[in-house]
Amino acid sequence: MDFDLGEADALLVVGDSERLADLFYVTGFRAPDPFVFLWTRRERLLVLSDLELDRGRAQARVDRVVASSVYERRLRQQGVESPQQHEVLVALAQDLGLKHLLVPAGFPLGLAESLRGAGLVLTVAATPLFPDRQHKTAAEVEAIRQALRTAEVGMAAALDLLRQSEVKGEVLHLNGEVLTSERVRRAIHRQLLEGDCTATGTIVAGGDQGCDPHQEGHGPLRPGQPIIIDIFPRSSTTGYFGDLTRTVVKGEAPAAVRALFQTVQRGQRTALDQIRAGVSGPLVHQAVLDLFTAAGYPTGERDGHMEGFFHGTGHGLGLEIHEPPRIGTRGQALTAGQVVTVEPGLYYPGVGGVRLEDVVVVRPDGCENLTTFPVFLEL
Amino acid sequence: MDFDLGEADALLVVGDSERLADLFYVTGFRAPDPFVFLWTRRERLLVLSDLELDRGRAQARVDRVVASSVYERRLRQQGVESPQQHEVLVALAQDLGLKHLLVPAGFPLGLAESLRGAGLVLTVAATPLFPDRQHKTAAEVEAIRQALRTAEVGMAAALDLLRQSEVKGEVLHLNGEVLTSERVRRAIHRQLLEGDCTATGTIVAGGDQGCDPHQEGHGPLRPGQPIIIDIFPRSSTTGYFGDLTRTVVKGEAPAAVRALFQTVQRGQRTALDQIRAGVSGPLVHQAVLDLFTAAGYPTGERDGHMEGFFHGTGHGLGLEIHEPPRIGTRGQALTAGQVVTVEPGLYYPGVGGVRLEDVVVVRPDGCENLTTFPVFLEL
Repeated sequence: MDFDLGEADALLVVGDSERLADLFYVTGFRAPDPFVFLWTRRERLLVLSDLELDRGRAQARVDRVVASSVYERRLRQQGVESPQQHEVLVALAQDLGLKHLLVPAGFPLGLAESLRGAGLVLTVAATPLFPDRQHKTAAEVEAIRQALRTAEVGMAAALDLLRQSEVKGEVLHLNGEVLTSERVRRAIHRQLLEGDCTATGTIVAGGDQGCDPHQEGHGPLRPGQPIIIDIFPRSSTTGYFGDLTRTVVKGEAPAAVRALFQTVQRGQRTALDQIRAGVSGPLVHQAVLDLFTAAGYPTGERDGHMEGFFHGTGHGLGLEIHEPPRIGTRGQALTAGQVVTVEPGLYYPGVGGVRLEDVVVVRPDGCENLTTFPVFLEL
Repeated sequence: MDFDLGEADALLVVGDSERLADLFYVTGFRAPDPFVFLWTRRERLLVLSDLELDRGRAQARVDRVVASSVYERRLRQQGVESPQQHEVLVALAQDLGLKHLLVPAGFPLGLAESLRGAGLVLTVAATPLFPDRQHKTAAEVEAIRQALRTAEVGMAAALDLLRQSEVKGEVLHLNGEVLTSERVRRAIHRQLLEGDCTATGTIVAGGDQGCDPHQEGHGPLRPGQPIIIDIFPRSSTTGYFGDLTRTVVKGEAPAAVRALFQTVQRGQRTALDQIRAGVSGPLVHQAVLDLFTAAGYPTGERDGHMEGFFHGTGHGLGLEIHEPPRIGTRGQALTAGQVVTVEPGLYYPGVGGVRLEDVVVVRPDGCENLTTFPVFLEL
């Protein structure tokens, strides 16, 4: 892996690699607390607390691990009573002869001002910091595939509950209790756990709840309504995400729901047919939007609520659940090796929401669909 | 809740509230993608994507929710082909007559430079942004207590497995299979799930693995060795964390482990006895460190590895697993209503690691221990 420093002496990244995917990507070191990464023209360097020192030396893909405490001690000897992070960084930069540092766009402003105040030059690097992170290696594709498989096991468990449920009154029941979004979500999470994945935000949203694409869903599930199930587990082992959405109806689907479902399915096929290296993301998105509009499913605000297809067609997937590239109104041409979701949806209060989501790898001549879970509406 | 703007016209926070606890704290709105919060002298305002609009209006504790797309559309009409976030913010600031913005220390440098380039004045706010977030309301203490209860249920499940296990050769077995760190961790996570919590980083580390305080632990567990179990679940409902650590030995503990355990227990009692509003965090930490040193357990580097007591005595707990205040070498006096962990530990390769962790609320005349899980060594 290479990095173009331009006129700078080093790249400086500060943060915790649980949240900062770029930092995990470049160091291979996962830590819940902020640490320092420096990539000079000579070496790749971590500055860690004593607590992380041994683990960093064993696990991080860097040339050298330095103890922050060494600098703190030296600063205390020089009369600095309570050495701060920026003082450690300034001392380190002096040691290494670094004056001009490149930092990511997300670099904390407060720290930047302290470093500049001490005479260092900071330049904001282009975004994304490591464009090549979008292009997945075979091992990364495999990690995403594994997380996606786990999502599929979770989806199967959810649909099993819905299949086994009975309609009583206007509500689904299973084993003598009401079948709720919460109960289905828990069954999904049990499966994800067995697959060594964790998930937050898992969506099981029936009826009009599904019309708000980030509504997680709550309360009793009902027959004859579309139920959106969106599962995006992260592997605890690899850190990579899977992402899978299906929409189902328990019992017979009303004609309006069936039509909505078929239209979304056509929209997804259109996107899948078009995705290949070189195709423009916004053009793919527009093609889906146009198909929906032509089919009589307009997008826009109505009675103060958005309806139709008001989110992107897809997003990059990897160490972050949402990462570049986006396939939406903005964006660039897709390139080979990107892993993206393809997830059109239509949402109309009164009818409900329908979304179908697969994950694909962009290839020179098309795309490889990593998702194996079948697409159907009625259970 | 009040906020002192000083000479600024508004506070500006940009980020996703899943990761930015301050943003969740001030808005009550949880969203996985970045959004904009503005607190002017007149109102509290969210700027959201169309996707989050309805949910934001229903859930956020703000005066007004604005659609980012309204500004994007206007900018497009003005000839900006692909409006960027900073352009939306500049247009919004113009509309509201805002020139001088206060931003958190963690505000992204790249965005700050764009805004300054457009003529806005940005000043970095003091850290922590909302100092009062450290002082938990009764409802927040209850949320932490609930997450902690779930951690205790997880701990009970882990110890059950260890209790039921049998020693075969030098390894623990249960139901015909080797009992590993991974297996115990999974049993813990199953319980956390039933308690509507998620957890990452759960530690089940035996023997010398426990000497690295962030080592999660892997492979077969063995009798006669200290096993550190550290569980810090986050409630999916409230967003608050619990945190609990115990150290146990399957079978008889060697004399050296027993002595280590008793010393850590004394250290923890010392800290618990001292914690009250007004006491200096560094003094509490030093008291524990001094007790350990006097008891013959020195702290420092040896053969290139840290040993002894080389982490803080505790940390604030709430919407973040580690938040202010810290009880360590640096810090200030504790104040009433803070919720902190008390978790001294001692780590000596060859003997193993011992850590004991409770969670307490700082009160005017002492501290209230929220932890109910008993402390014992042998199983």
